[in-house]
Amino acid sequence: MGHVDGETAVAALGSGRWRAYVSPSWSISGTPNGGYSALPLLRAMGELAGQPDPVSATIHYLRPALGDAAAELTASAVRRGRRTVVVRGELAQDGEARLVATAVFADLATPAGEGPELTLPAPSIPGPDACTPRAELVQGVELALLDRVDVRVYLDATSGRAVVDGWVRFVDDTPPDPLTLVLLTDVFPPSAIAVVGPTGWVPTIELTVHVRRRPAPGWIQARFETDDLHDGRMVESGCLWDETGALVARSRQLGLLRR
Amino acid sequence: MGHVDGETAVAALGSGRWRAYVSPSWSISGTPNGGYSALPLLRAMGELAGQPDPVSATIHYLRPALGDAAAELTASAVRRGRRTVVVRGELAQDGEARLVATAVFADLATPAGEGPELTLPAPSIPGPDACTPRAELVQGVELALLDRVDVRVYLDATSGRAVVDGWVRFVDDTPPDPLTLVLLTDVFPPSAIAVVGPTGWVPTIELTVHVRRRPAPGWIQARFETDDLHDGRMVESGCLWDETGALVARSRQLGLLRR
Repeated sequence: MGHVDGETAVAALGSGRWRAYVSPSWSISGTPNGGYSALPLLRAMGELAGQPDPVSATIHYLRPALGDAAAELTASAVRRGRRTVVVRGELAQDGEARLVATAVFADLATPAGEGPELTLPAPSIPGPDACTPRAELVQGVELALLDRVDVRVYLDATSGRAVVDGWVRFVDDTPPDPLTLVLLTDVFPPSAIAVVGPTGWVPTIELTVHVRRRPAPGWIQARFETDDLHDGRMVESGCLWDETGALVARSRQLGLLRR
Repeated sequence: MGHVDGETAVAALGSGRWRAYVSPSWSISGTPNGGYSALPLLRAMGELAGQPDPVSATIHYLRPALGDAAAELTASAVRRGRRTVVVRGELAQDGEARLVATAVFADLATPAGEGPELTLPAPSIPGPDACTPRAELVQGVELALLDRVDVRVYLDATSGRAVVDGWVRFVDDTPPDPLTLVLLTDVFPPSAIAVVGPTGWVPTIELTVHVRRRPAPGWIQARFETDDLHDGRMVESGCLWDETGALVARSRQLGLLRR
């Protein structure tokens, strides 16, 4: 079992309760990464749903999660349809709710309809080996999670836009799956750095990820853009593509840029 | 009191419970519009929060709401911070949950930080009087809600993109506010019509709205785009601007295009 699966495993306690251990190995400046801390919760919610793929997952970050600490998870289904199941869940540590999530689980192998298709092609960027390892960017944070994810960043200084492109894969070569794509939407530096410079820690208020296809093994290509920053509140949107160029996930988050 | 306020009013019953009446006047083919049915719930959640503005509101549509019927609302705060309050809520009718929501309430008049700003300018489109009233578009649905909202649509057939532009205001001239912007993100025809033709009813699975600024009185300009439609599941993103050109809300939804 790879690191990401082992370090987001959950143990069912029955009656919609699970127990997990939040590892310190996915932290940014001592706080577990938000994409990472959402994974045990979504994993428990998916077990309850009995459908494999989080086609929509919204996570609200209430308080920082605690690394190297146990977590209590609770989840309940609010709607069991034939093809989709909607589940709400909560991750608590030390008796306090840290994250709440609502997610829609379905089977991406079962089409919901037929007809025309529209997609966003992956932008043309240099390959992973020609991009900058995230560790070499100055962002004002300490990045333990780079022992778990290999993040390569491409910044086009001529664009004038707050865009970060790049590539990501798990360091131990665990292939991405629909659940771990949620994590991979949250491991790049904030795209605001492309226009405002080092940002420090950018707390996420709410993150919504739409998983669109099951990813092929290999690198995930990513693009994130902050096109809307006002009074310290920013909307960042992202796209992930797999190595075949298929659009596999979309993300949008509301975050705080405190400076 | 205008129609939108009167027809989304809630009566507090205490202990995190409210009662509302869902009007049949905001329906599409007999089902209350999703933006409309979310409003009494968000109104109750905002009362509980004690902060005025839904800076992030995520609504999951579990079953169609019922028009001309009472609704039971429940809400609870999962996090009360000094500046933001996170609330979860549920709208039930006939004993069944129809909508669940999670929203972050804050005061848009209080900046969360200072520093650079980024925004999306409103596209240049013809004025409201030069656009097409929504009632004149063939979409294959019956639109009672057009007695409540005046929706003007601009379709640029040369763009090749699934984009719908236009303008909207309440028929009785009620000025828009941060809460009612949520409704206004969901009253345009599905932008997919621009490339696939009449779509019929497009059920929303999940809708997330970020309210960015309090809107000035007058028309709201809107743009919606579906850039990602696969196996009948579509991601549609929207922007709303007020009459001064300020970006006031962003939306993204996962919907089903059944055809």
